[in-house]
Amino acid sequence: MEPIRILQIGLGPLGRKTAQFIRERKNVVTVGAVDKDPALIGKDFGALCEVDVEGVTVSGSVAEALAKQPADAVILTTVSDMARITPQILEILEEGLPVVSTCEELCYPWETSPALAHQIDTMAKAKGVAVAGTGVNPGFLMDTLPGMLTGVCQKVDFVQVNRFQDAQFRRIPFQVKIGAGLSLDAFDAKKRDGALRHVGLTESLHFIARCVGWKLDRTEDLISPVVADRDVKTLAMEIPKGHALGVRQEGNGYVGGEVKIKLVFQAAIGEPESYDEVIIHGKPNLLSKIAGGVNGDVATCAIAINAVGAVLRATPGLKTMRDLPLVTYF
Amino acid sequence: MEPIRILQIGLGPLGRKTAQFIRERKNVVTVGAVDKDPALIGKDFGALCEVDVEGVTVSGSVAEALAKQPADAVILTTVSDMARITPQILEILEEGLPVVSTCEELCYPWETSPALAHQIDTMAKAKGVAVAGTGVNPGFLMDTLPGMLTGVCQKVDFVQVNRFQDAQFRRIPFQVKIGAGLSLDAFDAKKRDGALRHVGLTESLHFIARCVGWKLDRTEDLISPVVADRDVKTLAMEIPKGHALGVRQEGNGYVGGEVKIKLVFQAAIGEPESYDEVIIHGKPNLLSKIAGGVNGDVATCAIAINAVGAVLRATPGLKTMRDLPLVTYF
Repeated sequence: MEPIRILQIGLGPLGRKTAQFIRERKNVVTVGAVDKDPALIGKDFGALCEVDVEGVTVSGSVAEALAKQPADAVILTTVSDMARITPQILEILEEGLPVVSTCEELCYPWETSPALAHQIDTMAKAKGVAVAGTGVNPGFLMDTLPGMLTGVCQKVDFVQVNRFQDAQFRRIPFQVKIGAGLSLDAFDAKKRDGALRHVGLTESLHFIARCVGWKLDRTEDLISPVVADRDVKTLAMEIPKGHALGVRQEGNGYVGGEVKIKLVFQAAIGEPESYDEVIIHGKPNLLSKIAGGVNGDVATCAIAINAVGAVLRATPGLKTMRDLPLVTYF
Repeated sequence: MEPIRILQIGLGPLGRKTAQFIRERKNVVTVGAVDKDPALIGKDFGALCEVDVEGVTVSGSVAEALAKQPADAVILTTVSDMARITPQILEILEEGLPVVSTCEELCYPWETSPALAHQIDTMAKAKGVAVAGTGVNPGFLMDTLPGMLTGVCQKVDFVQVNRFQDAQFRRIPFQVKIGAGLSLDAFDAKKRDGALRHVGLTESLHFIARCVGWKLDRTEDLISPVVADRDVKTLAMEIPKGHALGVRQEGNGYVGGEVKIKLVFQAAIGEPESYDEVIIHGKPNLLSKIAGGVNGDVATCAIAINAVGAVLRATPGLKTMRDLPLVTYF
């Protein structure tokens, strides 16, 4: 079988890693690359992504890239929000290509950005191709996986997902990102900047609600520091007692005034254990746990590539992981 | 929204439990019932299944049941093998209805019964409806769930699924079924009768292989006793040292002479722990565990009902859980 030809759009860290992952595989190949950054246009794609791909230069537009080399599907790794991703997707659909994107809000935009979602859906149907957002979270751990686990339930009363990560041995940029070491005032300032927020929790709440047939009255997306109860030393930093070890983000979905879905994402220095856990209260009760947790960077690039197979098999329109056939490694 | 009208075909233990589960829900309703057993035809469905459904009597054929009351979909809980389920499905397709069945071999018949699978597929497409086999195992724990978990993997080298059950506190018929208490000779005789065999392990092997793109050279389906290393007493029986505590069934899928997929189903008195576990060697490695395990009877009826929603949304043809949109509680 001929490999699936991918046009890679967006050459930030995620796009470059995706390019490296594609190079390791046999049934997908990157044939073109697009980035809007003037500093990247015209650059050699292989050198930029540190992969031995020859003859691909970065284009400034989808049409320009496709004029050089046709493709079967696009992997789009650029922005996190629907407002900015929508025109990018429409530009791709103009050329008639299916799209997998790691855009967080695209994972389930039907409640949070219905007008933009309909716009994409309409054009995708007109062009006869599918568009889907995915990733490890949102896209898998806090929505698709719990959704799938409800599939063996006769009744679902409450769903909780816990993603806990010990940041002690993670990259220093990750430790900085989660606010480790900050005073509580500095943590609050960073929180107000929006720099601490994991995007997509609300979309995951609505995804689960849609699966099980609940209409959420309201949702919450709460960010708070995990506070050191003693001085903590790591290889990279010293965190005084009372400062932040990291961040806790909690999403709550309410039905009739009651929390029916709770999503907790906590990443901090010295968390006793890293894991991803789904708890379902119902018939039967279920407790599913992935020991050690799932590495976010690896998994997001992997599932974006894996979703290409499912998107090519899907009917046209804007799809979520609820609509796609099973996304597996292939 | 009007509830989905179900025609229940097969009124054995699984069919009756399914009827009870449907009665507990709001968006599905049983409107007709079929069984080929002359002793059941004409009987009151509600009384038979112990549910407060009035006015439904058991019909001997699909056409007869539908003449009394139209339906939107069929749940078919009769036999485990493709040879016997195929004419039953064709009879339903004749009437143009989509089908969810708990038939084990139907969960992935493309390698083990390709001719029958094609026959069903062709007729389902001609009639414009979908047909799918599902259940907790096969259908979920040892195929769909591991398949889905590979979705966050960049590489998959080996997949193992372990389903371990402590039978000590299970129903006595279950203990008898797994050969608990038998001498090894008696265990062997029961094994030769086929009475110990869990149906569907080979289908699950092929399902996973299809997901990740492996072609299996050969498969194994091995049954052996779990042997008591000391005298064991339970409330129900005394098992002397050297007798069987239960059964271990192991499915192996080979690629290039190497076991790449291993499925282990072990049910015995005094297993230290009940659990369902997926192990993936790859990038990343994954270890996912459902503590306590998933109750088979509850989950199989639940997922059959839940799959109706997905089958109604699917394109026509014979589908597996790999093809269907996400099956969730609804």
